[in-house]
Amino acid sequence: MSVSGTGEFGLIDRVTARLTSGPTCLLGPGDDAAVIRSPDGRVVASTDVLVEGRHFRRDWSAGADIGHRAAAANLADIAAMGAVPTALLVALCIPPDVTVDWVEALTDGLAAEAALVGASVVGGDMSASPTLTIAVTALGDLGGRAPVVRTGARVGDLVALAGRTGYAAAGYTVLSRGFRTPKLLVEAFRRPEVPYLAGPHAARLGATSMIDVSDGLIADLGHVATASGVGIDLHRDAFEVPRQMRDAAQALGVDPYTWILGGGDDHALAATFPRAVALPAEWRPVGRVVEGAGVTVDGRPFDGPAGWDHFR
Amino acid sequence: MSVSGTGEFGLIDRVTARLTSGPTCLLGPGDDAAVIRSPDGRVVASTDVLVEGRHFRRDWSAGADIGHRAAAANLADIAAMGAVPTALLVALCIPPDVTVDWVEALTDGLAAEAALVGASVVGGDMSASPTLTIAVTALGDLGGRAPVVRTGARVGDLVALAGRTGYAAAGYTVLSRGFRTPKLLVEAFRRPEVPYLAGPHAARLGATSMIDVSDGLIADLGHVATASGVGIDLHRDAFEVPRQMRDAAQALGVDPYTWILGGGDDHALAATFPRAVALPAEWRPVGRVVEGAGVTVDGRPFDGPAGWDHFR
Repeated sequence: MSVSGTGEFGLIDRVTARLTSGPTCLLGPGDDAAVIRSPDGRVVASTDVLVEGRHFRRDWSAGADIGHRAAAANLADIAAMGAVPTALLVALCIPPDVTVDWVEALTDGLAAEAALVGASVVGGDMSASPTLTIAVTALGDLGGRAPVVRTGARVGDLVALAGRTGYAAAGYTVLSRGFRTPKLLVEAFRRPEVPYLAGPHAARLGATSMIDVSDGLIADLGHVATASGVGIDLHRDAFEVPRQMRDAAQALGVDPYTWILGGGDDHALAATFPRAVALPAEWRPVGRVVEGAGVTVDGRPFDGPAGWDHFR
Repeated sequence: MSVSGTGEFGLIDRVTARLTSGPTCLLGPGDDAAVIRSPDGRVVASTDVLVEGRHFRRDWSAGADIGHRAAAANLADIAAMGAVPTALLVALCIPPDVTVDWVEALTDGLAAEAALVGASVVGGDMSASPTLTIAVTALGDLGGRAPVVRTGARVGDLVALAGRTGYAAAGYTVLSRGFRTPKLLVEAFRRPEVPYLAGPHAARLGATSMIDVSDGLIADLGHVATASGVGIDLHRDAFEVPRQMRDAAQALGVDPYTWILGGGDDHALAATFPRAVALPAEWRPVGRVVEGAGVTVDGRPFDGPAGWDHFR
């Protein structure tokens, strides 16, 4: 059945019936607004919007996958401040031909991804629209920690990475060339595996800056470098090319480092730490903060595509 | 200049340069997420999405007007819980032909409406899209008060209204018939005048339920009646038809009560109060909570259009 068959309130009823409240949710969907615990006395908030044809394709990803990805993109932003996500709000714009099943699957994906960190979908809005659009707002709690911002990187700091990079970009390339395997890469594009807890951990370890890698490692560390007034040098040897990525790169005629250093969408976290910090295994050293500006690889400019601009 | 000329980051820079931080904003745009004060230890959050052609038309309203309306729709939801709004996050989906000037005017409207209650635009996201779409999330603080929900109306309670109803619906009808006057009604459609502070005031006065009137008074009080398991009877005499609305209704062949009782978009607040409460002037008694179900007018069903469903 398409959404035009249920009407707006019917669809809202069907979607909210699938949601369960997490421990941080005091009042969930069904009123003018939700009420969420924010015991820290500050709330961290971020919004990301996904537009069909630009951020996702229904023929490449199932509704649940798209829900996972939409939630992950937002939850990662909260983690990158050193906060623990508490809630999602979802504005959904739906063409009339979309099925109720698809919207329910999307909802399940959003809720399941949020549940990975104890958060829940607490509210939202729906409208018909010619363009399928998913705008998600994530909230989080700092638990007494200072937010880790982009401006604090200092010359001499370690640069470290939690999570994977290049997998989702490789999966995107695979799909865009008409293939459906290797599954490892395609699944990484469909559902990113985000190291959410590495964010609050980094804050406790004294991270001087942190960012969610969504535009690509070089591009996002470039934002940190600019905001902090420093340069960042990455060590290519720190990035292993997994076998399946190497095989796919060879088959497709792509340098795998354009995926690893230039591709976003895995939502890894990148942070800088004081040199003396003993990093746990989840944080892998990949470079150093240096004097200067911009991001280099082994001291030289990186010549692959650095990131993605939505209006060019 | 169109947005395709500035690129995504250029446009974000131009928009954020126009924003100023309110007193509740600890960290504004430019990082992975914003940080907002939530001293109550709970945060109230609501999302509303506006789609071009469905919720607004660029030939009917200027960019700044649309910004005011988008902010008002969300801020009113926060007020309707008894909370004071603190922050807005805005996801903007923009067709490439939209001008930078228009986006800047929209931003100014959003920020100016938020500033009316001491809130500010603290973050957001932008994407290109074929459909101009504005998804706004508003946050608010309860200041130690219990949230006023829809389920608390009790038989015998007073029903009261803060703010205007019917003005925006009349303005919409005027515009949709090709007219641009009366200015009072057209301006009410373009920029609602929301009695934001009446929300927290009602919470302090002991309101038993409250709702933002966005779908129409009959429809929205219907939500309260259903959630509370009661009926609501409105008194038609409580609603004065202002001269300009009466004249417009006569000229257009419309019963003005279909605007007043059936039209949304003024974002009035409707609440129920224990019978003994002494209501201040901003809260006007308009009816009574009764046994039964649904909403009646002087004891009889209302036969005008009751509300608006986005998928029918």
